[in-house]
Amino acid sequence: MKNTIEVCFSPHSFPLYPHEECIVVVIDVLRATSSMCTALHYGVEKILPVASVVEARNFQSRGFLVAAERSAHRVEGFDLGNSPFEYMQPNLKGKVIVFTTTNGTQAIRVARDAYKIAIGSFLNLTALCQWLAVQHKNIILLCAGWKDFFNLEDTLCAGAIASKLDSTGMFETNYDSTMASKSLYEIAQKDLYGFMENSSHFKRLAKLNLQDDIKFCLKPDQAPVVPLMEGNYLVPFKK
Amino acid sequence: MKNTIEVCFSPHSFPLYPHEECIVVVIDVLRATSSMCTALHYGVEKILPVASVVEARNFQSRGFLVAAERSAHRVEGFDLGNSPFEYMQPNLKGKVIVFTTTNGTQAIRVARDAYKIAIGSFLNLTALCQWLAVQHKNIILLCAGWKDFFNLEDTLCAGAIASKLDSTGMFETNYDSTMASKSLYEIAQKDLYGFMENSSHFKRLAKLNLQDDIKFCLKPDQAPVVPLMEGNYLVPFKK
Repeated sequence: MKNTIEVCFSPHSFPLYPHEECIVVVIDVLRATSSMCTALHYGVEKILPVASVVEARNFQSRGFLVAAERSAHRVEGFDLGNSPFEYMQPNLKGKVIVFTTTNGTQAIRVARDAYKIAIGSFLNLTALCQWLAVQHKNIILLCAGWKDFFNLEDTLCAGAIASKLDSTGMFETNYDSTMASKSLYEIAQKDLYGFMENSSHFKRLAKLNLQDDIKFCLKPDQAPVVPLMEGNYLVPFKK
Repeated sequence: MKNTIEVCFSPHSFPLYPHEECIVVVIDVLRATSSMCTALHYGVEKILPVASVVEARNFQSRGFLVAAERSAHRVEGFDLGNSPFEYMQPNLKGKVIVFTTTNGTQAIRVARDAYKIAIGSFLNLTALCQWLAVQHKNIILLCAGWKDFFNLEDTLCAGAIASKLDSTGMFETNYDSTMASKSLYEIAQKDLYGFMENSSHFKRLAKLNLQDDIKFCLKPDQAPVVPLMEGNYLVPFKK
């Protein structure tokens, strides 16, 4: 029997999906999972995702390097925000980073009972799919969305992952949410940036002059790494 | 300011949407809202949607005509099922029908605090949009889905409604869920039946040889009526 690929559009709906035996890929394209991939690709040793700012502050007071974003802004008093460009700094090499964001880290929390949690974005599209293709597990692509609502960029990324895996012939993707994601990716893929221009989070970030962040986050394969949850930490998969 | 059109993909997510001042259009293309439109168009006087089979049985014991469907089957012992063709019978003219289905009537229940509930399907597409266009209210298109999961046919119908209303220039439709629904409808509209062939509910109904039901339910404007909730009953809007 083929393994299945389903897409879940929001952390709010995730408890409806039986997931204990699945690999759950958490996707928060703008920008949490893009930043996580960038950080681990550029040499950060591991990432500790935490759901709340209170937890993050706690870790900071114990000397940890902490990234905290809420509603697209770096939370005051923290070391790092949620732009992938911040995570290219050579001085972060080998460091441990505690990370909390509006949607991405909540999605990781909600998926904690999964067989395995992986991190997905356009930046690690091919590497992630190569890894997923050989796990022989059912897959749920969990879109972090925006405050529990459906969003477009995570859906498009889920569609990209599903399309790529589907082309191997090894997966069953005839689920309504997967079909919809694949179809949307198909029409958007020639110009992801253009397709996104009217979307809610694009406009939210564009107001803050973060167009460069958006452009980078929509580019496939800029950070070919597969971040996996091992215990409480995200670490890059090593062959 | 323009009125807004948002799409909600599942009754499970609906409580996240502020809706007390909105018109909520409940959509369950295969087949509850299609059957409701058909019934009211063909002369049924009013429909009493109830959420549970227990309630339906209660009404039946009091002499009501009752339609009950669960998981695509007519529930044993009830008068009617969920095929639109059943509702074209001349002997139903002027009758009151109690109605319970797997998804549609639950979606109506969840929206009970809305400013107004209307019923949507392909069968009443144009009539519904004409009515919606002159209400000057924000609109939520609530897809009944399948057991709280996203489904394709309701999303396509939401996309059709949003596209039609968008073309009046009177609405704000730049919400991610609305954009996704419109895009999916755009690619599917030339051949809705073909687009649907791999979807979950299509396959579920096709197994029961209900292809004719599906074909009918995807045809626009076969039942030009606007069912509205007035008190506990669905009645056709009268000019």
